[in-house]
Amino acid sequence: MDDNLIYGRNAVTELLKSGHSVNKIFFAEGKLDGSAQKIFALAKTAGVVVEFLSREKIDKLCGGRHQGVAALAASADYSTVEEILELAVSRNEPPFVILLDELEDPQNFGAILRTADAVGVHGVIIPKRRSVKLNATVFKTSAGAAEYVKVAPVTNVAQTLKQLRELGLKVVGADMDAEIDFTQADLSGATVLVVGNEGKGMRRLTRENCDLLVKIPMVGKINSLNASVAAAVLMYEIFRRRI
Amino acid sequence: MDDNLIYGRNAVTELLKSGHSVNKIFFAEGKLDGSAQKIFALAKTAGVVVEFLSREKIDKLCGGRHQGVAALAASADYSTVEEILELAVSRNEPPFVILLDELEDPQNFGAILRTADAVGVHGVIIPKRRSVKLNATVFKTSAGAAEYVKVAPVTNVAQTLKQLRELGLKVVGADMDAEIDFTQADLSGATVLVVGNEGKGMRRLTRENCDLLVKIPMVGKINSLNASVAAAVLMYEIFRRRI
Repeated sequence: MDDNLIYGRNAVTELLKSGHSVNKIFFAEGKLDGSAQKIFALAKTAGVVVEFLSREKIDKLCGGRHQGVAALAASADYSTVEEILELAVSRNEPPFVILLDELEDPQNFGAILRTADAVGVHGVIIPKRRSVKLNATVFKTSAGAAEYVKVAPVTNVAQTLKQLRELGLKVVGADMDAEIDFTQADLSGATVLVVGNEGKGMRRLTRENCDLLVKIPMVGKINSLNASVAAAVLMYEIFRRRI
Repeated sequence: MDDNLIYGRNAVTELLKSGHSVNKIFFAEGKLDGSAQKIFALAKTAGVVVEFLSREKIDKLCGGRHQGVAALAASADYSTVEEILELAVSRNEPPFVILLDELEDPQNFGAILRTADAVGVHGVIIPKRRSVKLNATVFKTSAGAAEYVKVAPVTNVAQTLKQLRELGLKVVGADMDAEIDFTQADLSGATVLVVGNEGKGMRRLTRENCDLLVKIPMVGKINSLNASVAAAVLMYEIFRRRI
């Protein structure tokens, strides 16, 4: 995690179960009830250092609803694009990659990682600069999927897309103004799905490196979908063409 | 809105544009810059009372990132199941209704309303008790769709589903343990899509009143999807069979 503090019983339990390296677990002083006891036992089994803090201290540390439990996780394990492609090869599957072009909201990032895990995405690429990073909110929203899905930061998104195209991947961009409906598009084979910023969409150079732009049809009064919802609808469409 | 305070420039702009009744707009004292001026003009055009507050007061009022603008909205306009069905009739469409069975998270509710607007859902039914209500967070997350999509609270969900079935609607429940994959299910015609609680899913009595249970396939390590994502994937599947 970039900011290493994870709190709340579910989030800490998921963290411990994931096998991610944990530096310390904090408990609020007092008697540990059912699920806190389970976390204590998990921590002991994993050999993690445990520390008891006053409720005031843990409140201050977390600044949110911690339910008496917090964890200091080791830094996020980022991957590389090569590792993502290797995973696809090792599974004997055509690569299925997501690229998030300057996504901002950690809750969207977390929800996208959760769906990415569900549909067997091999990895998610993000720009090194001006992108949401792996942090505690992402971990929490992802229901733990942030531990399992490879995330690769890259310096130059356009360059990365060019390289992936040279390797035979098809780059599919989600674009409200596209002419092709996603249900009508050819979404089979090795694919990079590109999802843009919540407000601004994809950057121009990113869009220019797409092989195909697809839109999600809408018939209501609001002319856009939540970014994690749009990503999920497209991910499931790609997924169903693979099974 | 149940809690009537909406804040942040986008949210207040959407509120004013929606035509929803607004009791008052608050601005932080000082010179109004570009988008705040636009909101001021919108408020004047709509004949809404404007009040200037010190930044400390508006901070205290909002308790969140308000960007110097807040609005006191009139109470939420809830609908009835009858009004939802009448809307379908007036549009000459088979009814497309969502039922949220004890959904808890306002951000999920907002995201679901936003997708519901996009796919032309005629209305969303929620239980009167133990359900997330229309509030400022819902409004904000829905990007304004909470103004446009009819939301009908009902006293007895099982009874309501029975009545809808008698009227010829098919009740489709989202259930992780279902045997039928949503892509293989018959989702055409007049439909009620039921989505359960984030942690517990549908209640037993609700499940028993479904004609059909469908699952969303998952191949990852986390065994569930975010509720608003699951709802969106199913809503788009129903939508595509209607166009």
